[in-house]
Amino acid sequence: MSHNEEISVQEAILFTHKMAQLSKALWKTIEKDWQSWIKPFDLNINEHHILWIAYHLKGASVSEISKFGVMHVSTAFNFSKKLEARNLLTFSKRENDKRNTYIEITPKGEKLLLETMQAYKPENNSIYKGVQPLKELYGKFPDFLELIALIRQVYGPEYLDILNRSMRSIESEYKEPAMEDHSNESDWN
Amino acid sequence: MSHNEEISVQEAILFTHKMAQLSKALWKTIEKDWQSWIKPFDLNINEHHILWIAYHLKGASVSEISKFGVMHVSTAFNFSKKLEARNLLTFSKRENDKRNTYIEITPKGEKLLLETMQAYKPENNSIYKGVQPLKELYGKFPDFLELIALIRQVYGPEYLDILNRSMRSIESEYKEPAMEDHSNESDWN
Repeated sequence: MSHNEEISVQEAILFTHKMAQLSKALWKTIEKDWQSWIKPFDLNINEHHILWIAYHLKGASVSEISKFGVMHVSTAFNFSKKLEARNLLTFSKRENDKRNTYIEITPKGEKLLLETMQAYKPENNSIYKGVQPLKELYGKFPDFLELIALIRQVYGPEYLDILNRSMRSIESEYKEPAMEDHSNESDWN
Repeated sequence: MSHNEEISVQEAILFTHKMAQLSKALWKTIEKDWQSWIKPFDLNINEHHILWIAYHLKGASVSEISKFGVMHVSTAFNFSKKLEARNLLTFSKRENDKRNTYIEITPKGEKLLLETMQAYKPENNSIYKGVQPLKELYGKFPDFLELIALIRQVYGPEYLDILNRSMRSIESEYKEPAMEDHSNESDWN
């Protein structure tokens, strides 16, 4: 191995080690907060995520749930089946797409999801609390543009398109126009 | 709830939803790449992480491994015990600190860890590949400063101090001075 190749391997190890430590720390905190948030509702994170996606995407195929939920197809399928058994969602085929199985949230599932949303307390969320100094400094939430650019490279633009769709759907839950930051993405204009 | 409070809850939900999606996507990719990297060595991620920390921190207490490895104390302890059974590390008390159990990597553990490092192929790492367009644009790896600031808020400055220690230790593995970016953190100056 040449000296330059060695340096480039070292650079890669340093960079990916740093990203592994930052990303594990971030995700484990988010996971823990998410678990405590939905614990009273007898749902695990995967189940809540599936209901969330089915609701905000107004129905989704198992492969969409797997992709946007960042879970294996069999995980998406198995937890969806458990939710179906509790009448929180239904499986169906679509007229124009007989090959894929679609998932639709039921009124009971919608009611449960909205109850979880009402139980959401920003003050219990470590990420929300941790971001406050940056928010005060910037006058808005930080954009994490480098992180978004990296995820776009790794997961493709569709992943971020679905994220935008689900965020617009959350915004449209609220009757009055929200803060300026998101006005260009909103459905009310 | 007042209209302003509603907006602030909505803002919090939007922000934490976005962070959950970005962070889950990032971590799951890193986890998957890490698993494939160390698969040939009969180690799981936790075991590899423990060896890594014990090596680069030149010994560590179980609670340091738990904190920097972002794993539960019992996880850190149990996997350390498994590594001890394979003679990859040893447990000991320190003269000046009888209360904590310290973990030291053995020569056999060091040999195995270095073998994993030699098997590291940047071209198999999705994060390394995904970051290339940013690296070309910036002329260096992106800094992810917002992410670091957030982790500093949530985990405290010690977490990043340990990260810097482990990165300096990786750098010092290489005989020749590395790239400029890290020269101000290096041990050679």
